[in-house]
Amino acid sequence: MSESRSSIRHGTLAELGEFAIIDLVTPTAPAPAGVRVGPGDDTAEVEVRNGRALFSTDILVENRHFRRDWSSAYDVGRRAAAANMADIAAMGGTATALTVGFAAPGDLPAQWACDLASGIADEAALVGAAVVGGDVTSAEHVIVSVSVLGTCEGDPVLRSGARPGDVVAAAGRIGWAGAGYHVLARGFRSPRVLVEAYRRPEPDYEAGPDAAAAGASALIDACDGLVADLGHIASSSGVAIDVRTDAFEVAEPLQAVGAALGVDPLTFILSGGDDHTMLATFGPEVVLGERWRRIGTVATGEGVRVDGEPYQGEAGHQHFR
Amino acid sequence: MSESRSSIRHGTLAELGEFAIIDLVTPTAPAPAGVRVGPGDDTAEVEVRNGRALFSTDILVENRHFRRDWSSAYDVGRRAAAANMADIAAMGGTATALTVGFAAPGDLPAQWACDLASGIADEAALVGAAVVGGDVTSAEHVIVSVSVLGTCEGDPVLRSGARPGDVVAAAGRIGWAGAGYHVLARGFRSPRVLVEAYRRPEPDYEAGPDAAAAGASALIDACDGLVADLGHIASSSGVAIDVRTDAFEVAEPLQAVGAALGVDPLTFILSGGDDHTMLATFGPEVVLGERWRRIGTVATGEGVRVDGEPYQGEAGHQHFR
Repeated sequence: MSESRSSIRHGTLAELGEFAIIDLVTPTAPAPAGVRVGPGDDTAEVEVRNGRALFSTDILVENRHFRRDWSSAYDVGRRAAAANMADIAAMGGTATALTVGFAAPGDLPAQWACDLASGIADEAALVGAAVVGGDVTSAEHVIVSVSVLGTCEGDPVLRSGARPGDVVAAAGRIGWAGAGYHVLARGFRSPRVLVEAYRRPEPDYEAGPDAAAAGASALIDACDGLVADLGHIASSSGVAIDVRTDAFEVAEPLQAVGAALGVDPLTFILSGGDDHTMLATFGPEVVLGERWRRIGTVATGEGVRVDGEPYQGEAGHQHFR
Repeated sequence: MSESRSSIRHGTLAELGEFAIIDLVTPTAPAPAGVRVGPGDDTAEVEVRNGRALFSTDILVENRHFRRDWSSAYDVGRRAAAANMADIAAMGGTATALTVGFAAPGDLPAQWACDLASGIADEAALVGAAVVGGDVTSAEHVIVSVSVLGTCEGDPVLRSGARPGDVVAAAGRIGWAGAGYHVLARGFRSPRVLVEAYRRPEPDYEAGPDAAAAGASALIDACDGLVADLGHIASSSGVAIDVRTDAFEVAEPLQAVGAALGVDPLTFILSGGDDHTMLATFGPEVVLGERWRRIGTVATGEGVRVDGEPYQGEAGHQHFR
């Protein structure tokens, strides 16, 4: 970064103005090979394998999806990119390009916008993706809208393919981010490992293409909460899903926080979102790879049962409620 | 639309909750042929001609980019989609798929969200594109973030290809939306034709692919204002652009409003944005099709000159200023 570029970051967005901000947050790293036109023109141009693009968008609103006193700008960026890239993985694909719509109050330090952009770029780089465009404007609160393009080797894995007799499996951490959220919401900052799991989720991006290659019948990532998201598979597929809680290893930090807050730690696992755990169903003949943990089975019927009973806990967050 | 669907629209977003809102605004029309997976899964899947996707995003914030007392929800939708699809056209391409990030206060009538969705869908349908996904959440103000995918027959036309000796040409209305903005900002509602031009711009979407086919050397759409956007071509191409004001036909409504407001109507043409006029440069040997109006020439040097002089008017809107 040049000296003038670094000194300008000490101002606020209003002091810089739109074009200087765009300059400041535009990636300086060379674009990956598949990006034919990067930021700076009317649109980007990105190569898409097989001529089939996966395409999705998420909108994050300050004080709803993140709090500036809970997360650094860098972590908000990591988390926003992760949410979108996990959606691509949850189709069995890999993210290749992101665009970012950013709105913020004029008194926001320019450094905040820079750190946000760094977080998004660093998370994208984990899978070889890049930020290829965006839009910057002013608003009362910080809004981060990330859209993502991805590609898939073969057909994407939908939510609708689960069949009775299939095995339900999960890849990646479950409940850690949800527990971290509970910790932060009570005004605590530790255990740090859970707070960090909330601030910077670590989706198992490779689990998506891995599930597709293994012939998964359905695939989703847990963002609303495990039961809520398995419910999406159940309703899309027209099946019931039985989850067994003895399949989960309740890790020590979850136990400790559950005890401290007086919450059954299984609540974090069953209701907590934000970990972007990959949830897949596989035909009974499939031998699960080592990243997959069997957590239940698919049956005829509807809805999600936990240990044979309809789940009574909260089923995940719904906005406007 | 079913009766239950129509009656639910009388509530507010908070009364409906996130999932019912998504149901309500999700397109019911069959998806166009190129949409392999539409709304309802983790991402959409869209076919992309040539395996090369044009990709862009815009974020519109209430009271910055639109006012609910100036524009209907339907018109906000038309305008938001138009801005994005014009960006695709300004690469020489055609939009195929859109995603929408929507944030709004809980007391917003559900009908507003429905009308916004209709406006976006109807504008998209003008070029055979469709809304394939989105995200809904709550916020203090209405935010509409539209992302768009598009395809191009050949290479996209960038801003950077203009060469001295090229002709500068424009397709579509210029200054009408800008004049409409001035009218609304002064508290008036007529002339209706200008107010409507602001509320619902009508980009000449076909002019983009047409320019590409004719071998345009550079292409952009006027959203910041004619001089500002020609300035982007000039700086990206490392050239100067000379605009001749006698090339513009100052239409009667612009003259009338200019006289009424005491503003030189050329100001609307040179500084007004929002019409998404297509601006292209062509080699001197190209015979311009009938939709193109020659408005200037490309020269060595830098910047944009109007009738031989550096332009003194405001050069277009910059956020945070």
